[in-house]
Amino acid sequence: MKYNFNAGPSILPNEVFEQASQGVLNFNNTGLSILEIGHRTPLFQGVLDEARQTVRELMHLNADHEVLFLHGGATTQFFQIPMNLLDEHAKAAYLDCGVWGTKPIKEAPLFGQIEVVASSKDKNYSYIPRHFTIPADAAYFHYTTNNTIEGTQMHCVPETPVPLVADMSSDILSRSIDFNKFSLIYAGAQKNIGAAGVTLVVVNKNVLGKVSRKIPSMMDYRKHIENGSMLNTPPVFAIYVCMLNLRWLKAQGGVEAIEKINNQKADLLYQTLDSLPLFKPTVVKEDRSKMNVVFVMDDPEQEKAFLDLCKQEGMAGVKGHRSVGGFRISLYNALPLSSVQILTDLMKHFAQKRG
Amino acid sequence: MKYNFNAGPSILPNEVFEQASQGVLNFNNTGLSILEIGHRTPLFQGVLDEARQTVRELMHLNADHEVLFLHGGATTQFFQIPMNLLDEHAKAAYLDCGVWGTKPIKEAPLFGQIEVVASSKDKNYSYIPRHFTIPADAAYFHYTTNNTIEGTQMHCVPETPVPLVADMSSDILSRSIDFNKFSLIYAGAQKNIGAAGVTLVVVNKNVLGKVSRKIPSMMDYRKHIENGSMLNTPPVFAIYVCMLNLRWLKAQGGVEAIEKINNQKADLLYQTLDSLPLFKPTVVKEDRSKMNVVFVMDDPEQEKAFLDLCKQEGMAGVKGHRSVGGFRISLYNALPLSSVQILTDLMKHFAQKRG
Repeated sequence: MKYNFNAGPSILPNEVFEQASQGVLNFNNTGLSILEIGHRTPLFQGVLDEARQTVRELMHLNADHEVLFLHGGATTQFFQIPMNLLDEHAKAAYLDCGVWGTKPIKEAPLFGQIEVVASSKDKNYSYIPRHFTIPADAAYFHYTTNNTIEGTQMHCVPETPVPLVADMSSDILSRSIDFNKFSLIYAGAQKNIGAAGVTLVVVNKNVLGKVSRKIPSMMDYRKHIENGSMLNTPPVFAIYVCMLNLRWLKAQGGVEAIEKINNQKADLLYQTLDSLPLFKPTVVKEDRSKMNVVFVMDDPEQEKAFLDLCKQEGMAGVKGHRSVGGFRISLYNALPLSSVQILTDLMKHFAQKRG
Repeated sequence: MKYNFNAGPSILPNEVFEQASQGVLNFNNTGLSILEIGHRTPLFQGVLDEARQTVRELMHLNADHEVLFLHGGATTQFFQIPMNLLDEHAKAAYLDCGVWGTKPIKEAPLFGQIEVVASSKDKNYSYIPRHFTIPADAAYFHYTTNNTIEGTQMHCVPETPVPLVADMSSDILSRSIDFNKFSLIYAGAQKNIGAAGVTLVVVNKNVLGKVSRKIPSMMDYRKHIENGSMLNTPPVFAIYVCMLNLRWLKAQGGVEAIEKINNQKADLLYQTLDSLPLFKPTVVKEDRSKMNVVFVMDDPEQEKAFLDLCKQEGMAGVKGHRSVGGFRISLYNALPLSSVQILTDLMKHFAQKRG
């Protein structure tokens, strides 16, 4: 495969693969593999420190915000967040705008009350709800910034009187926003951060320690902060890959620089889609995601033919999620503009022949 | 470094490092890195299936036992086990025989009652308590089979009327025991299984579903079983390394074959220690671990001199844990007998000159 449009785990820069591969054989000329070094040695401490510090720089975080690399995936955050932030008789507000948005809504009621302030389920999550009220007494408001499956994205940060909590798994570090507005941000690493097996959590320490329940050590953000994000043996290699990839992003000019390229990629693909009636984007224009572009065709045979053509041309990960069908093209940071050019050329060619 | 005696993350076979390194560049000749393939593709499904099946074969598991690769480390199991197996008004029995044994004892009371049936804390955990009674009404009995820090190991499986739960992080797959006697076995992968960032859980499905509390999805073993150990994005690369290492162990002849070599390594090291009065093993003879060999010297200056000598000779991971001091030599499956020979030769040489 030559072009990787996977939704996650997904493409990373070639130099990251090369450095990570070398680290498995001989890490920093120690004669040891990154897989066999102690996690409490200066060797690994340097990796973790650089990864945390680079996140801090790339996101322009203030001193209230702590950077943690945790086990368990974003799915663990679905319950860890209410466990830490939602008291039994308190209430949290959730926005329901995608398959991934419904999952935390199912976990939170184990810990307290929840109110779903709006949902776009009525139209298969093809838009972002605009008119909703966040109750001022909510412990927090939770939403998903980018919906990987449906290809919608919230382009501005909602104004809210309550602490803001966001799942940014599929668009973190892809665009400049004021990350300091958030009380808690989480993201599975396997898209724009690094390798699967680790989750980035950025938390404003001022929201912690306010619930009355006892929290198991591994689920207590405060314990992770106290222990410098090394409460137990961390996922060493996954964090190493994050560090390499974050270092790469910083060298590209950071979030501000990659955002320009991400905009070019998304513009090129959406403009092509809009110019070719054969392809039908499923999302309303104003809520289209710049990370995951979803479209279908009217004719299942045409869809199959285009899918086969993409495979022939060495393209991976173009098939849509089963809940939407059609196609999903992921445009994460490491995907070069050239891959989108080749895809859009193929779409034009296909439309000329078959449209 | 040429000889790696690290306590974990620890040495793995060279061929595993080479294959894992290659997989990061080009996995199974797909042209894609193992880090950028979808976890729900046949490509990764094959890796996960082989890893789970090889565990099943190596441990000779019966059909009641399920094999899971989970996030979170053994430290997550410290609370996940009582969350799944211990009702609020029920009682669980724990054996306290090391620093790592005390940690689950601290987490379990959040979920129910616990009874510590015996402790060897009185002598800095330098022995395994022998005379204790497990209450017949306990929901389960929990113990640590091998104490990584203190270098003790329980050489037989305790007879008990209640479900047996064991932390086998530092001696799993190193010796033949009847794994089917256990209701739940867990082990961080970073010693004898593979790379840090994944935890093996082997659970007898008959003990599940008996507590009344609601369990968050990611913490519910039944949900992981239903989803074939892929409830969310798994730690792909860490599982890949486990699969490669388990495949290596199977090719060596499995647990029974590696046990013979492990016995040779431990015998050689303990015999050398016992023959050289300069070195003082800290553990009573009958409870000595075959995985982690702990010893001290009477004179701190001698200790420093020997530590320096080991470093000069390219030996990593020989320094003891701060709670015991002295030295700790870990003899995990991938450590060749030749490394122990070189170490014991060095000890003899040092004792001749300095003893």
